[in-house]
Amino acid sequence: MASFSSYIFLIILFIISVGVSEIKSIYLPGTYQSSLLVKKHDEKTKIPFKTHYFPQILDHFTFLPKSCKVFYQKYLINDQYWHKDGGGPIFVYTGNEGNIDWFAANTGFMIDIASNFNALLIFIEHRFYGDSMPFGNNSYKSAKTLGYLNSQQALADYAVLIRSLKQNLSSDSSPVVVFGGSYGGMLAAWFRLKYPHIAIGAVASSAPILQFEKITPWSSFYDAVSQDFKDASLNCYKVIKGSWAELDALSTHGDGLIKVSKLFRTCKALHSVYSARDWLWEAFVYTAMVNYPTEANFMMPLPAYPVKEMCKIIDGLPKGGSKLSKAFAAASLYYNYTQTEKCFNLEGGTDSHGLHGWDWQACTEMVMPMTCSNESMFPPSSFSYKEFSKDCKKQFGVKPRPHWITTEFGGYRIEQVLKRFGSNMIFSNGMQDPWSRGGVLKNISSSIVALVTQKGAHHVDFRSETKNDPDWLIMQRKQEVAIIEKWLEEYYNDLKQN
Amino acid sequence: MASFSSYIFLIILFIISVGVSEIKSIYLPGTYQSSLLVKKHDEKTKIPFKTHYFPQILDHFTFLPKSCKVFYQKYLINDQYWHKDGGGPIFVYTGNEGNIDWFAANTGFMIDIASNFNALLIFIEHRFYGDSMPFGNNSYKSAKTLGYLNSQQALADYAVLIRSLKQNLSSDSSPVVVFGGSYGGMLAAWFRLKYPHIAIGAVASSAPILQFEKITPWSSFYDAVSQDFKDASLNCYKVIKGSWAELDALSTHGDGLIKVSKLFRTCKALHSVYSARDWLWEAFVYTAMVNYPTEANFMMPLPAYPVKEMCKIIDGLPKGGSKLSKAFAAASLYYNYTQTEKCFNLEGGTDSHGLHGWDWQACTEMVMPMTCSNESMFPPSSFSYKEFSKDCKKQFGVKPRPHWITTEFGGYRIEQVLKRFGSNMIFSNGMQDPWSRGGVLKNISSSIVALVTQKGAHHVDFRSETKNDPDWLIMQRKQEVAIIEKWLEEYYNDLKQN
Repeated sequence: MASFSSYIFLIILFIISVGVSEIKSIYLPGTYQSSLLVKKHDEKTKIPFKTHYFPQILDHFTFLPKSCKVFYQKYLINDQYWHKDGGGPIFVYTGNEGNIDWFAANTGFMIDIASNFNALLIFIEHRFYGDSMPFGNNSYKSAKTLGYLNSQQALADYAVLIRSLKQNLSSDSSPVVVFGGSYGGMLAAWFRLKYPHIAIGAVASSAPILQFEKITPWSSFYDAVSQDFKDASLNCYKVIKGSWAELDALSTHGDGLIKVSKLFRTCKALHSVYSARDWLWEAFVYTAMVNYPTEANFMMPLPAYPVKEMCKIIDGLPKGGSKLSKAFAAASLYYNYTQTEKCFNLEGGTDSHGLHGWDWQACTEMVMPMTCSNESMFPPSSFSYKEFSKDCKKQFGVKPRPHWITTEFGGYRIEQVLKRFGSNMIFSNGMQDPWSRGGVLKNISSSIVALVTQKGAHHVDFRSETKNDPDWLIMQRKQEVAIIEKWLEEYYNDLKQN
Repeated sequence: MASFSSYIFLIILFIISVGVSEIKSIYLPGTYQSSLLVKKHDEKTKIPFKTHYFPQILDHFTFLPKSCKVFYQKYLINDQYWHKDGGGPIFVYTGNEGNIDWFAANTGFMIDIASNFNALLIFIEHRFYGDSMPFGNNSYKSAKTLGYLNSQQALADYAVLIRSLKQNLSSDSSPVVVFGGSYGGMLAAWFRLKYPHIAIGAVASSAPILQFEKITPWSSFYDAVSQDFKDASLNCYKVIKGSWAELDALSTHGDGLIKVSKLFRTCKALHSVYSARDWLWEAFVYTAMVNYPTEANFMMPLPAYPVKEMCKIIDGLPKGGSKLSKAFAAASLYYNYTQTEKCFNLEGGTDSHGLHGWDWQACTEMVMPMTCSNESMFPPSSFSYKEFSKDCKKQFGVKPRPHWITTEFGGYRIEQVLKRFGSNMIFSNGMQDPWSRGGVLKNISSSIVALVTQKGAHHVDFRSETKNDPDWLIMQRKQEVAIIEKWLEEYYNDLKQN
């Protein structure tokens, strides 16, 4: 159990990436494999972009003989709305931990607003994800190759690519605005901070840049998930909270595995009861993240406000009886909303591409400690740097640098620091999203603003608009557009004056 | 001649470093060796600091197995004025390309103001200079070791060291202000831009952060040197301008070397006429840089306003006659103001420590093209990226990245960028200093200000105060103190409010 606890946050960070890459399994000891990992959206979504590849330098920050090795970084481009000669802006999505096509398909907001702004759209893939593999199939082989995978190199990639692109397009004076969601939002925010001469502003949606060290309480993530369920129904929260003990009790039974396999309608007999726990866990956490106000298919196809729907299932079952079976029924909404699954694969994902890139990042720079408090609906757990470090060393041969991100990008006392430094940043967060707790939730200055929606979930504002969007979401997007307009107006005015 | 031209800027960049390191020669083909390089100030200057060594990580920006190799970075500390419990500030000098003791000895300004501010003083040595050698005696062996020498790694070193130091001193809330002169000033400015969460402000003296690519005209440096001499005396300028042709004429003579050796009172017969040219060149350029209003010993012991003194020597000699001998007489002021030299060593410096670190930096990131225009007092020369790149490849096995600095740190349209981003920076420049032309010479915003003095030279404001300081220098330092006071006041107020 202790070993599992230490990895909770890895599981959860993985949750960000699992939907956006082809990762088929997690390798850390104590974690799970899950049928969740075979995603429906692996199918290529049609998006209105042309694909290009940029010859990118391997290591921006050393001048060793091998630093200047070139790899091909994928980026997507849509110029159908661009008024280049009118100095139309360039909107750049700073890709996160996965295939860039998937982000482009799930960031309809940028496409929706492009024509109003006469903007060029660029989506840049993050190194070591999707097709942007510096060492081809060997990219994930060991720390000797993976060592080049980190956020600072990614930001420098974006800087070099954007500059080169602008030069090639003869559009040096076109203003660049960066956009990103989740880890991509962290990158967008950091890009504005580190490269203000390249991007005039950043829209960072659901970017947990404060989920490091002791800035945000370690239990906040799971407390937030729990709050979502509690808000939907106190009974629902209590049932889920009570289900883990029932599962634990079964794990000590002689025929526990058989019983759990039957209860969970697994396609094959389970090897570990932990698989069932992880399967439930994922369903609840993912669903809280994507607790969108409209039907959507971000992680999985789900109805509008899926947390409420899950709780309806639980509350609709007879009082008393097995909490575990109720939790299973609720989780089934997540895995089988389309009612097409006859049985569930809780184990046995394959790692056909070896793309466990976020695991690497979490084991090096992206150390975000997470725990489960007694008040959460999950089994209480703690976090130990020492144990975590030991396991990362074992898996990847490297030790985490838990203080590096806050040294490089800051985070402590961010209000005081950015109140008098920097400008033109939007931090948008939806409070349904458990990642919101590690985000910037208050305005910092007149031009570094927080847009917070109580009913919003994980970068919901970046999704394509739909007929069913609620007013608060329409309003939020309008605010974002108005702020970006102001940045551009200022930029063009300054340009005229010079 | 062509080969020489390409390296002019290397020579000049070296000028920054020559006074501050133990570099004994330059290795680039076409450049020179000079007795100048044996500096009097190699003698240890007594400074009121304790020496410490910090276990620093080799590579902040990759997670390769060897990235976390530790080396010992030297830093100096003076806590005699510090009111730690009162939250007294920490003044950090971001060391440049040389031994940190020497910078500490030549930045008396920080010591002078420390007691007023109740400040802790820290001088951090730059990696690969002085005693801070990541690979000991092998540090300069090849690109495989030197590859880790660059400005971004140096800035990250400072960030990591400062953060660790504050933690060890239990002074997390003490504000940090960074100071630097010349390349150290570039680092201080860039540190404030990249690490605003660590330094609340930067005082960058004579920091030519715009001396890259096409931001500043390539001929500006030598034009500025020439202007200094022209301002002192038109005749003086003309004599020096005419002297090169006389030297060239001698170089084609059969006994030219003997004649030049005699004229230049060399201790040993010269091997190349170029040595004499370089010797003169250095004297004029260095003297323009250190054209201080008081007697000083920065590069060499020199009288107040040494350019004027040099020109007095030239103007005092009979009209007509050899321009070369007059130029020699003027240059002798630089090499022999103390009248202790019986003869001059124009050749034969040794490289006992192999510390040609700036040459490496100039051949990788610090590509600052320089040319001599027809209006300068130097022989006209051009700059070719191609040729330069070829020679760097030959010498170090690496190719320069001429666009990297402006990609990483910006520079183009700096007013427009920093008008709406960043704060709390002082760019001080003296217009006698030829480096001033590549600096920030105009206020950018209410808190990013340029302090420009017409009579100032290379970071004169950072020198210890003397009885003979002119009013404008006293005033400039007072302005700097007042601005720093404002930064601190704001910081403490913000701290109270949180």
